[in-house]
Amino acid sequence: MKTYKGFLIDLDGTMYRGTEPIPEAIDFVKKLEEKGYPYLFVTNNSTKTPDQVADVLVKMGVPATTEHIYTTSMASASVITEEKQKARVLMVGEEGLRQSLLDYGHQIVEADPDYVVMGLDREITYDKLARATLAVRNGATFIATNGDRALPTEGGLMPGAGSLISVVTTSTGIKPTFIGKPESIMIEQALERIGVRKEEALMIGDNYDTDILAGIRANVDSLMVLTGVTEEKHLNDVDEKPTYVIQSLAEWEIN
Amino acid sequence: MKTYKGFLIDLDGTMYRGTEPIPEAIDFVKKLEEKGYPYLFVTNNSTKTPDQVADVLVKMGVPATTEHIYTTSMASASVITEEKQKARVLMVGEEGLRQSLLDYGHQIVEADPDYVVMGLDREITYDKLARATLAVRNGATFIATNGDRALPTEGGLMPGAGSLISVVTTSTGIKPTFIGKPESIMIEQALERIGVRKEEALMIGDNYDTDILAGIRANVDSLMVLTGVTEEKHLNDVDEKPTYVIQSLAEWEIN
Repeated sequence: MKTYKGFLIDLDGTMYRGTEPIPEAIDFVKKLEEKGYPYLFVTNNSTKTPDQVADVLVKMGVPATTEHIYTTSMASASVITEEKQKARVLMVGEEGLRQSLLDYGHQIVEADPDYVVMGLDREITYDKLARATLAVRNGATFIATNGDRALPTEGGLMPGAGSLISVVTTSTGIKPTFIGKPESIMIEQALERIGVRKEEALMIGDNYDTDILAGIRANVDSLMVLTGVTEEKHLNDVDEKPTYVIQSLAEWEIN
Repeated sequence: MKTYKGFLIDLDGTMYRGTEPIPEAIDFVKKLEEKGYPYLFVTNNSTKTPDQVADVLVKMGVPATTEHIYTTSMASASVITEEKQKARVLMVGEEGLRQSLLDYGHQIVEADPDYVVMGLDREITYDKLARATLAVRNGATFIATNGDRALPTEGGLMPGAGSLISVVTTSTGIKPTFIGKPESIMIEQALERIGVRKEEALMIGDNYDTDILAGIRANVDSLMVLTGVTEEKHLNDVDEKPTYVIQSLAEWEIN
């Protein structure tokens, strides 16, 4: 088996299920830490700050610091920075998005923005949707943290970021640039962050449609774990298979 | 010119623009009233009650009573009644929709509905969207008052009912049955209400994509007035033309 030098790891369904940790995954990350391999948790959750995400992991016994977290909010803010420093950004999202935009030096505005960035916002209002719609119609660059249509919760599948974003797309006819998995851009940014080349990296996740496809699109080998949403039989229906499929990370040997 | 015995008339762009009355249209309706022709104002606005709509018209000098108003909320409630009396309905909408559902004898519920009905709701919340999404996913029949993607206001084009509805469609993959113009169902119900046959009716409106298409789909002759959103040149791009096109209703002779 090939030796990988850096690891991108999904969170929900891979490290934990809801609030329940997955012990095999935690042991796996502990081994990466012991052996000194770089790893980064790559999440489509735009609502939490990296500190908040790291806190959750630390409480589960995962060796994680803020530096180990890469969210779609950070990736979105970073994509904007590459195009324009200190951009005027109208955001629809939660604390994680707000924090990332400010961390990257952008200015959060209510009108006349250069960019509209939308993520999951569970305090959505018509006014927020209207402002975003008007700004996109008026020519602001439209960016979406991620396209997830549904958000798994204990109460069932709730509307995901992609569903809220469809309000603006439907009203204006303008599609956003999506940043999160399965887009390759998030993976490319994550690898740059840990300084690992594509050929030496492994993307690990439970969700074929986000984690694995992101790996495939970015030309990064992928490891699918069957601890989350995608069942093995689903792979019969897909053209491009993950590089590896395992029941849990207990099966994966780190060289 | 053919003699018509009943008239379906759009409101915004046809009878008024925003808060500004269109005098030629008001004179036209006065003549219909004098000559005893039945007419019904047919509107995709689901947010107002028929009383509220009639009030606006009366203040502009239009001979209108509550009986002259047919809204998508009424049509939606009526469609449900045809399928099921006293249905359990989860609604996302404003006062007009709530009132119509109650008027038609339905029960408004928060969970386990037979039907989910969505219209424009400018007090939209994530919780409302989540309830609607869950209910549709669980098998409730999904009805949309209208599919308008944008809502013209003095502040610009705001998200219309169709844009909000796309949240549920995107999240569940399930499309609603649309009721308002350009669907023929609203026209058919309106004609039944005034007791006029299709061959003897005229649909009058300014919007090709809603009013005129609704007439075409319902096999009802259509009269497009150039007082609202659709410009005459737009007709070069459409396959099916309105039966008549005029600058304003001053040009239309009533026999």
